[in-house]
Order: sequence, then C-alpha cells, then structure tokens
Amino acid sequence: MQQHNIAMLGTGLIGDFYTMSLHAQRSRDQVRVVYSRSEERGRAFRERWGIAESTTDMKAAIEHPAVDVVVIGVPNFLHEEAVGLAAAAGKAVLCTKPLGRNADEARRMLETVEKAGVFAGYLEDLCYTPKTIKAIRAARAGTIGEVTWVRSREAHPGPHSAWFWDGRLTGGGAIVDLGCHCIEIIRNYVGKENKPLEVLCHADTLVHPISDEDNAVALIRFASGALGQFEVSWTFRGGMDLRDEVAGTEGTIWVNNFLRTGFEMFSAGGAGGYVAEKSEAETGWMFPVGDEAAELGYIDMFTDMFRSLEAGTAPRETFFDGYVVNAVMDAAFKSARSRAWEPVMLAEWRGGDVARIGSGTAPETYEGMVVIKREILPDGRHKLILKDPASGDYTDRIVAAPAS
Amino acid sequence: MQQHNIAMLGTGLIGDFYTMSLHAQRSRDQVRVVYSRSEERGRAFRERWGIAESTTDMKAAIEHPAVDVVVIGVPNFLHEEAVGLAAAAGKAVLCTKPLGRNADEARRMLETVEKAGVFAGYLEDLCYTPKTIKAIRAARAGTIGEVTWVRSREAHPGPHSAWFWDGRLTGGGAIVDLGCHCIEIIRNYVGKENKPLEVLCHADTLVHPISDEDNAVALIRFASGALGQFEVSWTFRGGMDLRDEVAGTEGTIWVNNFLRTGFEMFSAGGAGGYVAEKSEAETGWMFPVGDEAAELGYIDMFTDMFRSLEAGTAPRETFFDGYVVNAVMDAAFKSARSRAWEPVMLAEWRGGDVARIGSGTAPETYEGMVVIKREILPDGRHKLILKDPASGDYTDRIVAAPAS
Amino acid sequence: MQQHNIAMLGTGLIGDFYTMSLHAQRSRDQVRVVYSRSEERGRAFRERWGIAESTTDMKAAIEHPAVDVVVIGVPNFLHEEAVGLAAAAGKAVLCTKPLGRNADEARRMLETVEKAGVFAGYLEDLCYTPKTIKAIRAARAGTIGEVTWVRSREAHPGPHSAWFWDGRLTGGGAIVDLGCHCIEIIRNYVGKENKPLEVLCHADTLVHPISDEDNAVALIRFASGALGQFEVSWTFRGGMDLRDEVAGTEGTIWVNNFLRTGFEMFSAGGAGGYVAEKSEAETGWMFPVGDEAAELGYIDMFTDMFRSLEAGTAPRETFFDGYVVNAVMDAAFKSARSRAWEPVMLAEWRGGDVARIGSGTAPETYEGMVVIKREILPDGRHKLILKDPASGDYTDRIVAAPAS
Amino acid sequence: MQQHNIAMLGTGLIGDFYTMSLHAQRSRDQVRVVYSRSEERGRAFRERWGIAESTTDMKAAIEHPAVDVVVIGVPNFLHEEAVGLAAAAGKAVLCTKPLGRNADEARRMLETVEKAGVFAGYLEDLCYTPKTIKAIRAARAGTIGEVTWVRSREAHPGPHSAWFWDGRLTGGGAIVDLGCHCIEIIRNYVGKENKPLEVLCHADTLVHPISDEDNAVALIRFASGALGQFEVSWTFRGGMDLRDEVAGTEGTIWVNNFLRTGFEMFSAGGAGGYVAEKSEAETGWMFPVGDEAAELGYIDMFTDMFRSLEAGTAPRETFFDGYVVNAVMDAAFKSARSRAWEPVMLAEWRGGDVARIGSGTAPETYEGMVVIKREILPDGRHKLILKDPASGDYTDRIVAAPAS
Repeated sequence: MQQHNIAMLGTGLIGDFYTMSLHAQRSRDQVRVVYSRSEERGRAFRERWGIAESTTDMKAAIEHPAVDVVVIGVPNFLHEEAVGLAAAAGKAVLCTKPLGRNADEARRMLETVEKAGVFAGYLEDLCYTPKTIKAIRAARAGTIGEVTWVRSREAHPGPHSAWFWDGRLTGGGAIVDLGCHCIEIIRNYVGKENKPLEVLCHADTLVHPISDEDNAVALIRFASGALGQFEVSWTFRGGMDLRDEVAGTEGTIWVNNFLRTGFEMFSAGGAGGYVAEKSEAETGWMFPVGDEAAELGYIDMFTDMFRSLEAGTAPRETFFDGYVVNAVMDAAFKSARSRAWEPVMLAEWRGGDVARIGSGTAPETYEGMVVIKREILPDGRHKLILKDPASGDYTDRIVAAPAS
Repeated sequence: MQQHNIAMLGTGLIGDFYTMSLHAQRSRDQVRVVYSRSEERGRAFRERWGIAESTTDMKAAIEHPAVDVVVIGVPNFLHEEAVGLAAAAGKAVLCTKPLGRNADEARRMLETVEKAGVFAGYLEDLCYTPKTIKAIRAARAGTIGEVTWVRSREAHPGPHSAWFWDGRLTGGGAIVDLGCHCIEIIRNYVGKENKPLEVLCHADTLVHPISDEDNAVALIRFASGALGQFEVSWTFRGGMDLRDEVAGTEGTIWVNNFLRTGFEMFSAGGAGGYVAEKSEAETGWMFPVGDEAAELGYIDMFTDMFRSLEAGTAPRETFFDGYVVNAVMDAAFKSARSRAWEPVMLAEWRGGDVARIGSGTAPETYEGMVVIKREILPDGRHKLILKDPASGDYTDRIVAAPAS
Repeated sequence: MQQHNIAMLGTGLIGDFYTMSLHAQRSRDQVRVVYSRSEERGRAFRERWGIAESTTDMKAAIEHPAVDVVVIGVPNFLHEEAVGLAAAAGKAVLCTKPLGRNADEARRMLETVEKAGVFAGYLEDLCYTPKTIKAIRAARAGTIGEVTWVRSREAHPGPHSAWFWDGRLTGGGAIVDLGCHCIEIIRNYVGKENKPLEVLCHADTLVHPISDEDNAVALIRFASGALGQFEVSWTFRGGMDLRDEVAGTEGTIWVNNFLRTGFEMFSAGGAGGYVAEKSEAETGWMFPVGDEAAELGYIDMFTDMFRSLEAGTAPRETFFDGYVVNAVMDAAFKSARSRAWEPVMLAEWRGGDVARIGSGTAPETYEGMVVIKREILPDGRHKLILKDPASGDYTDRIVAAPAS
Repeated sequence: MQQHNIAMLGTGLIGDFYTMSLHAQRSRDQVRVVYSRSEERGRAFRERWGIAESTTDMKAAIEHPAVDVVVIGVPNFLHEEAVGLAAAAGKAVLCTKPLGRNADEARRMLETVEKAGVFAGYLEDLCYTPKTIKAIRAARAGTIGEVTWVRSREAHPGPHSAWFWDGRLTGGGAIVDLGCHCIEIIRNYVGKENKPLEVLCHADTLVHPISDEDNAVALIRFASGALGQFEVSWTFRGGMDLRDEVAGTEGTIWVNNFLRTGFEMFSAGGAGGYVAEKSEAETGWMFPVGDEAAELGYIDMFTDMFRSLEAGTAPRETFFDGYVVNAVMDAAFKSARSRAWEPVMLAEWRGGDVARIGSGTAPETYEGMVVIKREILPDGRHKLILKDPASGDYTDRIVAAPAS
C-alpha cells in the first residue's frame, strides 16, 4: 500500500479544497509541506490542516526530500514556473486548471513533463464529479446513442480572490476561469478522440467594470459533427449554476451538479453558517450540497491521480488534455474578436479520426421512399413520414407494425 | 358581452389545439365554420368539435356572413393568401406562427392588414403560457434587474405532419418550426423596445435524412447588449423540452413549461392513453402536464386576442412582432451559411432606443479604487475586490459593513 | 348557449378567487350581486370586480330575480343558513369547503337541497387542479394498478382571516381548514365507491397559542384495504406545501401543486409585488405558480359545476361528498381524543362495495412454490423469491425468462 | 497513521457495499478475511475485492490474529452470536442494521459489548448520507427553529435476498428492514436527547403473499411534542424512494437521497448496465445517483467509525441507538396489533430531559391580546391576528411595522 507525501503550492480557496480532499475520509496520503508567498498565510494553512511544514520558498517545497508529489494551486501565471521546478526535481506534478494562460504556455508545460518523464496530471475536478463520471460512462457506452450536442454551463457572481480578475495574470476573464471546465466536460461527453475543429464565441463585459469578459457563450464544432456549447458568467445571481446537458441520437442526459441536487432548506431565522460555495443567502430557500468536495469531484480526481501514478498509467485528465483546452480557449478569444469561426490550432493531435454522426447506418427506406420518422400510434400501427428521393416531396403513410 | 364566431382554417394538430382552447371552460366564442382541403377531414373535425359547418373552400369560410374572426391554422405557405382574403373581407385575422416563410412575406402580410384596417393578432402561444406571462411581468418590473441573457430552448423528436419537413412549404427546418417561438420569448424578456441587431447561427442536419436543419443554435445581440440564445432540435429524445432561462443583473428566472412541472408518474403496466404531446413512452417514468392547452398558452392567448379586439387595442403579439421574428430567422439562416454575424434587416423599427446595460449607474468607488465586487463575510464585514484605475491592478480589502 | 347570473356570498380571499375564476378568460357567466355583512367591503368588492350590485342582506342577494346560481363563500358557521335560503328560493347552490362544521350540519344541508330538488355542488377546488384531474383519471384507468396508499399534504403558516382561528365558528383548526381538501383528494384517488371505514388521528397545538390543533396527521382505512394519509399544518415555513403522492401496485404518482411547479425565480433586489399565495418572501429563491386560480382548480371546478347544471347531471363533487368528508373529519377529531381508531359514522352509503386489493388475482406459483417476487437479471434470466407454503421457508431460484 | 484490518462477516449485497466503501478512494483500511457460510460465495467475494483470505468458520474469521475490527453483515438472526464472538475476542465490532430482531436481543448485545469494553458501532448508513449529515447539523444548530415534525420514508419493490422475507429470521417485514433507518433518521433530526415516548402504527400486507407486513405507517411522539412519522413499503414502483422532510418552527428541510438528485437520463435504446440500486428500468427516464456508496452514507459512516475508534470516543451511531430503534419497532408492532398508542419500553434512558416545544418563549401580546400571527402587508404595515384571552374571540388589526 503506497502512500504519498505532497507539496501543496498555494493557500487560496483551491488549496483548501485540495487539502480537504487529500486528507478526506480514510486517506493514506498527506500534505507534507505547504508553500505560500506569505509566511502568515502559510502558517495559518499549516495549522488549519495539520501539516508538518510551511515555507515561502516554492523551490524548497518542491524539492523537499520527503515529498514525491507536487500539487500546483497557485495563480495561473505561476503554473509554468512551478511545473518546470517539479519536472527538474523529478517529482510527479498535478496542476490545477487551466493548465496555462494560453496554448503556448500549456504546450511548453506538456513538453517539460514529457521530456523529464515525470507523472503529470491535469486537475480538472468537474470531469470527476460522481454524477459526471457515471454520465460520461453511460454516454461512452452508447446509452444515449451518438452524442450530437453538449451544453456545459458554469456561472456564479464572480471569483473571491483579486488576482482572478486580472487578465494579465490569468489569461482572460470568465472564459479562462470557467470555460476551461466546460470545454473538458464537453470533450469527455463527445469523446476525447473527437477533434475540436473550430470555435465561435461571443464575449462581453456587461456588469463588472473590468477589462475582461464577464459573460461568454461559445460553440465548438467537433470532427463527428457534434456541437459543444459552453456558457460562462461572472454575473449570475442565485448561487453557483453548474449544469450539463447532453443530447444523443437515442437519449438525453441532464446533470445538475450544484443548485438542485435534492437538498432544499428554508430558513426564516437565518442561523449563520457556511451553506454552500458561492451561495448568496442565509435565509429563505437555500440549496446546499451534501459533501461539497466530493460533489465537485475533488475526491475522485485525486484517487484517479494517485492510482494512475501507482499503476504507471495515464490519469483520465492529462497535460495533453489541458493543452487542448487552452487551444480551444485561444480560438474562443480569437473568435470573440474576429466575430467568426476560428480554427482550433493544435500542434499535435493524439486522438485519431472519428466518423461523422450517423455515417455507420444507411437511412431506412419504405417502398423506395426514405423514412424520415416513425411514430407509434395508439392503435399500435406505425405512422411513417416519407421523402420521395426524386421529387423531394414529403408524405405520410400509416402502416402495420413490423414483425419484431 | 360580445361573442365571436370564428372561421377555423386548417384541421391539423394546431387546429385541434386552437378549437379546444376556443371552446374551453365557459367560453362564449364558437368556431362557426371549419375549412379543410379535404372534405373528409373537414367533416371529421366538425363532428369532433360540434361545429355547425365545414367547407373545402377557404374563401367561402372566410367570407361566411356569420363569421367575424378568421383563425389561420394552415401550413406556412398558405398564410399570405389567407391573410389577404381575410383582410379583403374586412374580418379580424389571427395567424399561427411563424407569420411568413420569410420576412418579405411577413412584411407584406403586415402591410395588408394595416392597409385594410382589420384587427390582426400573431398567435405566438408560448409567450402566453401562464408561467411565461408572470415571468415576463416580473422581468419587466425589474425583479431581476436588467436582463443580460435569455436562453430559450425548444426541442422534440420532430413534427407529426409531412409538410413540416418540406422547407419549400415552410421556409426552413427546425429554426422555422421552433425558433420562431424562442425568438419571441426572448424579445419579451429583454423588452420589445430592445432592437435585435445581429445574429450568429450554427445549423446542421445531424440525424434525419432531410434537406433542412434538424438542429440549430443561434445568438441574438440586442441594442442593450443583452444576448438572446435559442436552441432548437428535431432530434431530442425524451419528450418535449421547453425551457427558458433568464439572467439579470439582480436575479434569475428559470421556467420549465413541459417536462418537469411537478407531475410525475411511473407505470409498470402501460395502461394506454395520451399522456403528453410528443411524449415518447407509456411506461416507466412519465411527466405529463396538467392542462396541456392552458400550459402551452393557448387559452390566455385567445383571451388576449378577443379582449384586445373588443377593446380596440393591440394584442400582446402583433403582426409587427411576427415580422420581426421572421427577420431574425432570415438573419439566422444567412449567418448559418456565411458563418459570421449577420445584421437583422428591418424595413421599419417601431421600438425606439434603449440604453446599454448598466449605463444608468456609475461604478461604485472606494478610496479612489473601483469596486468590482462586494461580498459579505460570515462576521458581517464586507470584502471588496478593488481595481486601481491607473495601474489596472486588482487587490482585495476587508472593510466594515456600510451603515444602512 | 346558457349564461348564469350569480349571487356571490362573501367578500374574503375565497370570494376574490371565486369571482376571478368566474370572470376568467372568455367566460359567459357573471357575478350579478355580492353579499357582505359590511357595506364598505361589499362596495369595494363590487368595484373591484365590476359587479352590478352589492348588498348587506344575504336573503335579498339569494332571492335577487336575475340570479340563478348562489355561490357560498361565507364562514363555515353560515353555510347551513345560506344553503337553506338558496334551497327555499329554488336556486342552484354551490358551497365552499368544508360543507359543514360537522357531519350533522352537512347531513342536514344535503337533505335540504335534495328535498328542494335544487342543483347543489361542493366547491372542492383541489380535486379540480389540472394535474389532479389528469392524475385521477390515470389512477382510475389503472395506469398505476390498484391504489394502495395516498398521501395528501397541505401545509402553510396559517390562515389570513381571524374567523378561521376560532373553532367555534369553523368546527376545528387545521383539520377543518385543510384536511377537508386532503380527504376528498384521497377519496378521488382510491375511488369514491371505496368506503372510508375508520380513522386514526394525532392532532396537536405546537406553535400558535390557540385552542384548536395547528398540526395533525391522520390515517384513513378504506374498504379495499387502501390507506389514506393526510397531513395538515398551520406552522409550515417556506410557502404553501400542496403535494399528493399515490402508490399503486403497478405504479406511482407524485403531484406538486404549488411550491415546485417548474417556475423558479431568484431576486437580490426585492422588487415588490404579489408572488404567490402564502409565499413568505420577496427576495432570494421564490417559486411562483403560473396562473394561481387555474392551478388551484377554481377554473375547472366552476366549468364542471355549470356544465353539470346545464346537462342536468351531478357534478364531480356533490353535497354527498361534502358530507362524507365531514364524517371523516368527525372521526379524526374523535380519534385524536380517544387515541384509537374510530369508525366513520355514515347514515347512508351511496358507493356500493369494493373488493380487497389483489383479490382478483391468485398468487403466481412455480413448481408448487408461491412466487413472492420476480426480478430480471442483467443477463435476461429471472430471479424468483419463492415461499414454500408448507414450511413457510423462503428460497431464491434463477430461471430462464418465460416465453412471452 | 493507524490502519485497520477487518473481518467481513457476510457476502450479500450489504457485504459488497461495505467492502466497496472500506476500500474506496485512498483508504488505508483493508478487509483481511471474509466469512461466508458458503465456501463458493466466500471465494468469489474474496476474488471480487482482492481480499487475502475467506473462510466458512465465523469464529475463525473473528479471531484471525491480523484482524482488529469485525464488521457484521450477516442476516439479523446471527447478529447476537457474532457480537458475542467479537466481544469475547476483544475486537472492535461494527454491526449492520437493525441491531437485533427485537429490543431484548439488542439490549443483550449492548450489554455484551459494554461488559467486554470493546468499541461498538451501529452501522446506520442513512444517518450518514452527506446531505443528511449537513441537514442534521443545520437542524441541530437551530437553522429551522425547533423541530416539530419529521417524515422519513423508505420504499422500494422489496428485498433481493430470500431470508429478508422470513420474519422468523429478521424479526418482521418492511418495518424491520426499512423502518429502522427511518426511526434513527428521525431521532437525529429531533435530537437524540429527545425521548421517544409512544408509537402508533398501521401495518398491512397488501401485495406480496407473505406473512409479514409489506406496508406500514407509524407515528412516534417524542418528549418535546415533536412528531416522527415513518412510511415503509416493499411495494413501491419506480425505484427506491428515500426521502426525509423536516418541519421546524422557523424553517423546513427536504432531502431526497435517491430518486431525484439532479441526474436524469433518458434512453430509447436500452444499452445495458447497472443504473441504480433497485431501479426498475433500463430504458425511458432513469434517475441514477452519482456515487451510490457515498450517497447512501457508507463512506462517511466508516470514516466516523474508524476515527472514533482511534480517538477513543463514541461514534455518532452506537449500540444504544440501535437498542432504542429496536424498542421503537417493538412498540410499532405492538401498536399495529392493539390498534392504539403503545409506549416505547426502554430499560434505560441515556438522553436526559427536553422541554416542550415553545416552552422557552411566552406568546407575544398586543394591547392585552395574544398575537396569533403576524403578516407583512405589501405596504409594509403588519396585519395581526389577535385573540382575546377572556372571551376567546379572534380579530384582526392592521398596525404600523415595529421599529426594528
């Protein structure tokens, strides 16, 4: 039974969530040292989580002899440096989302870890929510047929920390903060072998007096013809809206990860206490989640990372995935400016080819006509909508049910 | 107390819904004559609804001396002819959606009724669902602040009648069939005075072997900066998905008009019977609606039409609205081909000007910094995210709550 | 086309709802005169609803020559007097719920209208909500098999008017105010031919300093073995909880009539306005209903009443039903005191006999064993739980699927 | 960092769930040996979960030198024997629900472990679902005021294993199988210090041809006046219904643990695969849960057990709790026969006394009248419902809002 000793880089909200998850339940892994720019915050974090050491020297944390895994939870502009140090130290490295501020940064990080031969995982927690894991498995198993469309939405009233609002440090606004989640969720549903070809994006700054977008909607066209659609907002009111919808040729999946999960509470009195991440109220109707770290995927994510590390296999979410996400976001930003579809620029594609939706099956015919739709009538007979291939005319016909 | 005698043109599904609604509850209005191309269908319809007469002569139905109101429920390519006949006969005319197959047709119909001086109403039922009426009222009253984004979605497995599938007769595919609903719902939420400026659309034919689109997503940019987003599909599985989501600067509205309305039924046995329009199953979990005609807005729609006719005022939905919807759809089709934003071409705009979202309020400042966000901490103090207007740097600051 | 002229007795909340419903949509019926004890309230009501006359003389209102239908919306202790006057005047009479303060009163009212030969309807609106009508139809049609259990719940923070709180005027507390709805809903689901045999009730006064119960739960055992369960509360927080759950041998029905109907709104700003009956908040998450009068059944109720009156048939809800409800409530009060099952005392039963649940089918057997349960395994075979009738021992057996 | 080596007794569905949970995520604990009556099932289980040893000798499993914790997952009639062996061996013992077949058995087990001084935990998983843990914490913290009523419902189509159906082996039917969960959930919400005084129960065998109840509803009256209500069924159709509702003087909690948790899937095609425990369908609308073991509380339950064991503290759920649950069930069975309230017979009460709901606050008065209810009107004024303590008469009064 292997145990891991972790260097945690960063003491913000994400550092808390990561450490809570790493120490959760009956975990055998431990954060061994925490790095913060601020000695005070490092010490407070150390005490909060029962960690042996804290330091203001990122390199020292990474190179700490007891540490075998580095978890990067610092702001986006520091990811590349941290990855470089971890790779140089030969340590496994797990990096928070987004991987880079842009695809170039992400590409260099990918090359760095691959050259160094260290294990690298991309901490895309929302692809690991228990519902999402099961839903992706169902979609990949064909339960809903071929996936034609995925909508992934993440919206809340805006981040808690100042640096998130500074596009120079992050690479953008709501797209970089939230869109990275949506893009990778979409990729999991349509299949990672399904190449994202081009992106159409509308971004705007509607509410907050900032330089970057606080709202955006984008479409991603994949090789199979499937359409991904992400919606991100820093101006949503009412909590955190975290929903995915998947349409397939044979079915539908709807996942609500946060605001409507079967837990509803009304309080007239407003007894205090932390109800839910980014909840806006402490009275009236509230919608908490049960175990926030688990529901947001952190627990399953680290389990996959450590099991893969121990098994010598790739985790579900790799630095290559992080690179693809950055490339899609680059295309989105470019499209928002050009106001047209922009290609996703990928220096390398590891996913192979996929066929167009429906290409595996010829259309059904009936007496030389193409069957457009088949409906079962109350009396058991079938109503066919038929197209004459010659004239292009449509008719309907009621026929006996086929012998099954 | 005025009563109306109606000529119903068309005996398809919409004719049934309209007549059911016109005769519903304690109605004082009556369908007096029904027109169908087919004598047999006309007679069956007449008997089904207890109507005095049926005819295969559309002009005769319209000019029937007892009739004062003409309701058009025939396929799209016959709307213009029917409107012309009704206007010539000096009868009030209520036309189903979409008004025309394109904006030119719609524009001519608008001119025809205005020139003739007859009352004309656009039968956009989904703007009249009881939930939508109340939600629009709340949005217009400012309950959710300024509207920034509206998503309107209509999706089902495809129409029941053959002619719907023939773009030559209808003007297009799922956009024309379903998008017209969504566009007008969006306009009601963002405000009808809010001019739709341009449209970005992606359309594709993913499942059915037809010439027109069976799936589309489009963005509509309005004068205020608000974004409309419509999603239409003829390939959705699981019933009829009819949902609207509205984001405002101070709130959120979610309306589910069909598949999740608080009525859930599981049946192992599959006792027959009509459960819901476009439901796909008669066993397992089903989600009927209570009173389908009422929930889909037909009842409130005709009430508004007849009350407006009697009061000499414009109904909520006019032929001008129908014309704007057609113009937005024209832009959507053009954008789907050009793969770029396309302007909405309106020969005339009756809505005036609106200001950009947020233009009425200057950003809050704190000690010379711009307040980006204000959060209330558990101890009652406020955390401010601040932007230095000179450097563009962001910081946070914890301050006492302002005296209220 | 018959029209009715109505005398409305009472100007409280229920008078408003009734009049709103009677005048709704394209109604041909009209309230012709309104009675109130208070001249001022009568005049205000008259102006609010555009009624020709108001009076403080109940008898004069009833006997008004233009009036053919009397609607009783006065407090419970005045029902008997009003019914007597209407019967004496030979007018049709529609009485709000509960019919009497107890079964004796209700019985006398039933005899009065039957002796006078006037049309009489029991205004039990919640049996007419559009969802309930459709759900009852499904249950009666066998969609969920034989009904075994019905839970009907009505709970809110307590009535708006003072007289409701005085058991001397009403006949009791929450049971009389709310339980009457639940009992009749339950009867509709289990079948009105299904005699209520006995009642077990726990009632308590937990929150309000009043003499009558503000909370109660009761069980009703029916002739078929089906169990009814009603829960009523005047101390519920969060709005109005109006839900029914029905279990059948082949299915399940869940109806949410009010707080979760597919309409959700969050408001940070608190723009004023009436959101929903008995809503507790104007900010935060709110759950309005679309058309309150329609969703609460008032529209369909009056339609049934007037159509039945015109057709010379009994309405869905009769004075006999009201009498049965009172008899069940009498048994509930008695049981709450005796702390034991109490029989429902009915002077007359018009429903006939029903068989015990399951009596129509012999248990399935397999090789001489009784099949307790049959499960389908993932591989298509069936797993049987078997009982040996001799020893009473249980075993399981995996068998091939039967040829269908 | 302590690790535990576990003897798992039993290889049924619960053994699978327990082992899955004990080995879940990054757990440091391990099942070391598994006991089954059947060598074949023991070996299969061992291979399924990667366990070192299996045995058909329960005593040998318990006394295995490497083992420090015994988990009892065998049928009810074997609990007492297994507890005795574990206590004799000085091992920590965790026993599945219900503790005994009746309170006498449970009482003896409680005495056995206390006399032996071994750590003992009651494996009541549903008190540990993440939602329930958070909801109980909110309720105990006063977020919803004083708890007045708790409804806990568990219903499904009946157990998978034959022995569950034999009351001689289990102690009863659906009450023993499901009611034990509900009772302990209720106790957690009303407070474990709140003594259950008496029980009223209706039980019936409506569908399955068995000797024990397949449906039951019971009321539990607690010392504070709070009412517990449990509903259990082995005849529910549509999946597993696992819901709790809590009413408090200041709020409401609704928890849906299984069938409606924000994960909805429609499949027309019916791709195979395990969707959810006790799901009834593989096509149509399905409602899976994300991580079943976590959502059902198994993960958090074992974490609490092992942390308490290591800390030397009592776990949240103890053998005393199990004993109280059995005593409540005994009273329920007695009541179902006597058809009257039956006292809960407890040889010992460890919870102390609690005050009657509302006893801490005197009713508000206004000018000598008792304020029954206070409503806020749209214009900001308050409407008071007042009771004259002398006459018992009720009036209403509209007053200015009190200065806050």
